[in-house]
Amino acid sequence: MEHAMETMMSTFHKFARYKSYLTKEDLRVLMEKDFPGFLENQNDPLAVDKIMMDLDECRDGKVGFQSFFSLITGLTIAFNDYFVVNMKQKGKK
Amino acid sequence: MEHAMETMMSTFHKFARYKSYLTKEDLRVLMEKDFPGFLENQNDPLAVDKIMMDLDECRDGKVGFQSFFSLITGLTIAFNDYFVVNMKQKGKK
Repeated sequence: MEHAMETMMSTFHKFARYKSYLTKEDLRVLMEKDFPGFLENQNDPLAVDKIMMDLDECRDGKVGFQSFFSLITGLTIAFNDYFVVNMKQKGKK
Repeated sequence: MEHAMETMMSTFHKFARYKSYLTKEDLRVLMEKDFPGFLENQNDPLAVDKIMMDLDECRDGKVGFQSFFSLITGLTIAFNDYFVVNMKQKGKK
């Protein structure tokens, strides 16, 4: 688990390029590299813009680590819900 | 990143033993196995009880994935703050 958390931290800092925030462009590159499937499934050229609108609460064009992690939380909980539904269908629950 | 998120999901389900929640005992075993350093640093025999009180909002002795993930969020943000302070001291920021 600690390694997974380090991965999330280092991913943020890698794409933030040692700024303490992500710009929309940083976020786009991160999503394209680390969540290629997710973006394609959105089938919406404005997907990153919409995610940015959700995360950039201060409207300063900057997404800090805490906001970034709320994105990760949302995605992980959605994946988990999908995983649980599938386990139930396979009769594992 | 997707692998890191899968790790967090599989860790939860492993310790929940395919229940959809963790009991206090499940949480204790998870913390001892996956965050040994964290518990030792607390130097508080009631650390897990206190974490459970925070997470078990319904007071039913059960911690679901979403509450569990709020623990991971808190820990990761704390690690990140520590990491950023250290980077600043090393003059990387």
